[in-house]
Amino acid sequence: MKCKICKEDAIIYLPSHNLALCEQHFFDFCKRRVQKAIKRYNLLDEGEKILVALSGGKDSLTLAYLLKELGYKIEGYYIDLGIEEYSERSKEKVLNFADRYGIKVHIEQVKELFWGYSIPQIAYITRRPACSVCGHIKRYLMNRFGYENGFSALATGHNLDDEVGVLFGNIINWKMGYLGRQSPLLPSTNRKLLKKVKPLVLCGEREIAAFALTYGIDYIEMECPHVKGSTYLYNKGLINRLEEKSPGSKLRFYQGFLENKHLFKEEDVDLKECEVCGYPTTSRICTFCNIRRKIKERIKGQT
Amino acid sequence: MKCKICKEDAIIYLPSHNLALCEQHFFDFCKRRVQKAIKRYNLLDEGEKILVALSGGKDSLTLAYLLKELGYKIEGYYIDLGIEEYSERSKEKVLNFADRYGIKVHIEQVKELFWGYSIPQIAYITRRPACSVCGHIKRYLMNRFGYENGFSALATGHNLDDEVGVLFGNIINWKMGYLGRQSPLLPSTNRKLLKKVKPLVLCGEREIAAFALTYGIDYIEMECPHVKGSTYLYNKGLINRLEEKSPGSKLRFYQGFLENKHLFKEEDVDLKECEVCGYPTTSRICTFCNIRRKIKERIKGQT
Repeated sequence: MKCKICKEDAIIYLPSHNLALCEQHFFDFCKRRVQKAIKRYNLLDEGEKILVALSGGKDSLTLAYLLKELGYKIEGYYIDLGIEEYSERSKEKVLNFADRYGIKVHIEQVKELFWGYSIPQIAYITRRPACSVCGHIKRYLMNRFGYENGFSALATGHNLDDEVGVLFGNIINWKMGYLGRQSPLLPSTNRKLLKKVKPLVLCGEREIAAFALTYGIDYIEMECPHVKGSTYLYNKGLINRLEEKSPGSKLRFYQGFLENKHLFKEEDVDLKECEVCGYPTTSRICTFCNIRRKIKERIKGQT
Repeated sequence: MKCKICKEDAIIYLPSHNLALCEQHFFDFCKRRVQKAIKRYNLLDEGEKILVALSGGKDSLTLAYLLKELGYKIEGYYIDLGIEEYSERSKEKVLNFADRYGIKVHIEQVKELFWGYSIPQIAYITRRPACSVCGHIKRYLMNRFGYENGFSALATGHNLDDEVGVLFGNIINWKMGYLGRQSPLLPSTNRKLLKKVKPLVLCGEREIAAFALTYGIDYIEMECPHVKGSTYLYNKGLINRLEEKSPGSKLRFYQGFLENKHLFKEEDVDLKECEVCGYPTTSRICTFCNIRRKIKERIKGQT
């Protein structure tokens, strides 16, 4: 197979674009997909100070790599969740990556903030699903760190497959609230709430993995052990079968959704200040502080 | 397994309703599902003269059976498409069914109306996909027959799986026009246009097959040979996998869609009278008459 642009040997064929590309033109292609998302969805301005959430996986590392390549001012942020082997190995990947590409990276540790407890333990104590606890804590910490350190945007590595997986579940169940909120851009609606952007939404999982492999970005391949068997992963599998039968389906589905997003109105959320930490929340005390309170109670009960 | 209602031996378990039922209560269940659809979506009035489109398959025969059981005044209508073995065998099933249950059935033959040509031949000559030609011709003939013979409604056997298969394809591709039109009830918007209703939309394919088998409705199991390999069938397969993982998904997806149907506005269609046949159409000459004209030209060219 030859590159459609320069006729050199192709290294990848993209069925969704009916496009074969050589190493150089695949690089350009991925860069342009990120530029396109940033421009089309108005994600970032030049010169913004961007905090990139790094998990050690292919998506977040590729995102940091491409944003730097595109000339954005970025710093990385990693949260050590304390999920044993998974956390140890992912931290190592993040540190190596940051070192190699000269990206400053900030690290926070869940165990330090929760008196020695890790995500699985917090989930057990608070009787919440691990992925729910983890999501709340990560979102809270990323936002707080970004706000306190003068960042104006938080960029995450959500890719097309992630977004389509979520969209699919929300559409099948007509979760109107979630549909109204799903977007590559969540603007800052409060002084203490960072803008959140997803510059990889037009890049498929397979393309990102190929990019990371081709350009030597060393990432953790292991999935978080808690995500196994989830409906979300199952739905992603179904969508992959759809894509096989009809290449480009994922992109059509996602872009069509964004074009028709006005149908799903975002509900106005009344934000208050958390009585404990002062960060925006919809209830009196935010979920993060509530989780912390439960852990504190547990510790008191033990002593 | 025992029937949830009377504790007799169950003959079927319905995962979507987490319900095991005996023969009698499964019968009642199916009857109630049809009643519920008729009532909720305002499909039929008592005493209406209803033409039921019969294909010889499980859905249309079960529909006729249940409508009669519910006391509706029905007559059957069968179109012989001239698709060789499939048409011969399906006609036999329809005639046997009508005879057994004392239902009057009307038959029209595509070959009689198209100078000896069958659906596959018409598709070939007009260079249209067979399923498209067939759909157009069937819809036209059913409506015309119903109108000319004083019926006020045309009932078809589309079941939940059919509707979900179509809905899924329309949502994935955000076909806004089709989404606006998809409904268990298409009201009569023109004197010469029959109301069209789908009373089986709350009944799954598996339930209908079980119903037909249990109550001895002898139907043709053979699928039309032209439908093989279609995206529609492929999508139905994907949705079945979703249903397996999460029973009730089909019903949630479809009912959620109908509850939110106001989002997808039906476009106003400007209906004219076909210059050839006088039936409603969006263009100068309707598709049916256009197809007939092409066949006539072909015949002239040959003589």
